[in-house]
Amino acid sequence: MERIPILRMGKHLLVTIQIDMQDQTALQLQEDLATMVEKSSAHGVLIDVSALEMVDSFIGRMLVSISDIGRLLGATTVVVGIRPAVAITLVELGLSLGGVKTALNVERGMALLDNNRIR
Amino acid sequence: MERIPILRMGKHLLVTIQIDMQDQTALQLQEDLATMVEKSSAHGVLIDVSALEMVDSFIGRMLVSISDIGRLLGATTVVVGIRPAVAITLVELGLSLGGVKTALNVERGMALLDNNRIR
Repeated sequence: MERIPILRMGKHLLVTIQIDMQDQTALQLQEDLATMVEKSSAHGVLIDVSALEMVDSFIGRMLVSISDIGRLLGATTVVVGIRPAVAITLVELGLSLGGVKTALNVERGMALLDNNRIR
Repeated sequence: MERIPILRMGKHLLVTIQIDMQDQTALQLQEDLATMVEKSSAHGVLIDVSALEMVDSFIGRMLVSISDIGRLLGATTVVVGIRPAVAITLVELGLSLGGVKTALNVERGMALLDNNRIR
């Protein structure tokens, strides 16, 4: 099974999703992230999806779950790099990722997290 | 009946939940906390659940209630110490504790409260 790596960047964690995740990979990622947020006391989690040309409802829901889990552990999650076409598809699917913070790219996402640091 | 102690820490109150609460204990805690918030003019309430290996929907709803009650009395409630596995279960149960502030541990929760003091 593929396992998506989680990188540490200062006070934050960075996950770059490059493959179309299957259920098992996604569940593993949720678990790995939850463990890592606790272990590293991360303030924020950046999820970069700029490599994905398609985000289906499964991945959409997974992003919402990860964001909720992170919040319960005291970390802010920001999804970055959603492509214009992907954004349009997501909204058409009725998945506007309510409650999930988003930013244009990693740099902006990082700035958003640093600004929210104290929370 | 067990009664969960409420400790005073400066301007805040600290509750450490260490047992699987039954209905009566939970209702008693809500009442004790409400009384204590008023009496002590507490600015914030920290609820530490790090001792709990499982948080079911009853406890989940109770945390939301306590947070709402505190808010009505002018105090901010922060739930701290949710374990990674508990966070995942809560989200799977559809209980992402919307509206409840969270932090990784007591220290972070305290920082969050002190920052929010004026609100």
